[in-house]
Amino acid sequence: MKIAICGYGNLGKGVEAAITKNDDMELFGIFTRRDPETVKTLTGASTFRTDDIEKYKNDIDVVIICGGSATDLPVMTPQLAKNFNVVDSFDTHARVPEHFANVDAAARSGNHTALISGGWDPGLFSLARAYADCILPNAKSYTFWGRGVSQGHSDAIRRITGVADARQYTVPIEAALEAVRSGSEPELTTRQKHTRECYVVVKPEYDNAAEKERITNEIVTMPNYFDEYDTTVTFITAEELKEKHSGLPHGGSVISTGRTGLNNENTEAIEFKLCLDSNPQFTSSVLAALARAVYKKNRNGDYGCKTIFDVSPAELSARTPEELRKLL
Amino acid sequence: MKIAICGYGNLGKGVEAAITKNDDMELFGIFTRRDPETVKTLTGASTFRTDDIEKYKNDIDVVIICGGSATDLPVMTPQLAKNFNVVDSFDTHARVPEHFANVDAAARSGNHTALISGGWDPGLFSLARAYADCILPNAKSYTFWGRGVSQGHSDAIRRITGVADARQYTVPIEAALEAVRSGSEPELTTRQKHTRECYVVVKPEYDNAAEKERITNEIVTMPNYFDEYDTTVTFITAEELKEKHSGLPHGGSVISTGRTGLNNENTEAIEFKLCLDSNPQFTSSVLAALARAVYKKNRNGDYGCKTIFDVSPAELSARTPEELRKLL
Repeated sequence: MKIAICGYGNLGKGVEAAITKNDDMELFGIFTRRDPETVKTLTGASTFRTDDIEKYKNDIDVVIICGGSATDLPVMTPQLAKNFNVVDSFDTHARVPEHFANVDAAARSGNHTALISGGWDPGLFSLARAYADCILPNAKSYTFWGRGVSQGHSDAIRRITGVADARQYTVPIEAALEAVRSGSEPELTTRQKHTRECYVVVKPEYDNAAEKERITNEIVTMPNYFDEYDTTVTFITAEELKEKHSGLPHGGSVISTGRTGLNNENTEAIEFKLCLDSNPQFTSSVLAALARAVYKKNRNGDYGCKTIFDVSPAELSARTPEELRKLL
Repeated sequence: MKIAICGYGNLGKGVEAAITKNDDMELFGIFTRRDPETVKTLTGASTFRTDDIEKYKNDIDVVIICGGSATDLPVMTPQLAKNFNVVDSFDTHARVPEHFANVDAAARSGNHTALISGGWDPGLFSLARAYADCILPNAKSYTFWGRGVSQGHSDAIRRITGVADARQYTVPIEAALEAVRSGSEPELTTRQKHTRECYVVVKPEYDNAAEKERITNEIVTMPNYFDEYDTTVTFITAEELKEKHSGLPHGGSVISTGRTGLNNENTEAIEFKLCLDSNPQFTSSVLAALARAVYKKNRNGDYGCKTIFDVSPAELSARTPEELRKLL
């Protein structure tokens, strides 16, 4: 199948790499809002203007849309779904129902198939919650993120006056993980689940104790981002940031516990855990697999908007059903 | 939907309990090869003779077949699939393709839907291996079982002369788990992955040092069961066995690691872990959820034999697609 990438940031580059690992996929090209001439791709793939994409509607099986959830995807996904089979990684959990409705209408208008909110959360973590919910209807699921870099929180620190660069790690609290795994179904506050570790580089003119104290204070009291967490701030040099904190690792766990037996006498615990060196590359790998499922669904006449809940593992796989049963 | 249970051992009792937790399911009754009058059920469910089951073909939506994989299921599942939608937990991995073919032909002959090899391994662990294989095509998956009771190994010990009762725990080796999680993709021998712990009660007339030494030796050298493992044998009293080892806990982990990035520069690890107080009750809970998927597929005209690979999470769930998207 021929895949196009729309948007060429970390996620788009991850999809480009992921396609090289899937023998049944071929990269048609990369669509960008920048001048295509100026975009150098990892694999030497062709580049095109996003505005020209409709010209290629007969050449592309699935478009993987690698834009941001805040402003890009709510517009781009419905628009592209009119003419293409599409996959996106829309991750604003609260707005999923609204986005789904818009994309569904667009995809159905042209007999296309779309899949939204692919990735790992939403995505694989949603699956983990769903399987637990199906098997143990009384299960309670907890999600922990990290240890990993939150790009949103890193950006928030960078907007503070005097900050040259920053990296924020979200860290799950081990005691909370253990309490959840035990099946005790604790009520946990935001502060009890995660801590936040910030590594901050100050601009030279702000490199003094008073300014560092002000910056620390602005971070730890920042509403929505940090005020409900125990946050540590460590000032480091630009060199140290580059050397030790240039990756984008992430991960986390969905832990679900529920009871079985006529009198709920037994506790069963299910844990799905990710430990990722590269958050964007792993997300991209999920999107590539989902593109295969979208392609198969479209060929079977299954149109409209889907989520990962609608996809069977067999649809996601490049293997034949016989191979899956024999090998896995 | 109306569910019947065929076979009333630990697994059948687990299904009976699981049905009480699923509001969309109702237990039609329990079919047994014993005299139905003598079978006392947990919930007071009606009991019937297995030989009479065809009389009720219009009253039952799905039969969950709770028999053994060695001799029961290869016969019972194809036979019942001619007249009923069925689910089984066939777990002889190597014979899955053959069992699938037999059940598929039978189910298609009467426009029924069957699902084989449900449970957690095969079942949820197969899913974990499949998702990893789809997302990271170069992934290597490792399966560890335990800590948990292996009923097959416990039975093997009980067959030794002089043994009154026994319980065998399969225990994953922590160093092997850590090596796998690191992404180093180690080659591990059978001995390096698991140890086996045996708790043995001897008959009074064999309660002496020489007989215990003989029994220990027969256990640790037993081909296929113990000879490839580091095995410990502990002799205990019948009272201690009852007090400390009467449960059937089990679990384990599927750990998959693969590389992303154009030069495979990043390692991504996926782990799916179960920690179960009751192996049969959890297996039964999976079978109940699969019965729902079979029921939906049959109503949609999707006949023949399926596995968990063919089931989408939405089909497995009692929730509406809207609820799934909003809540999970």
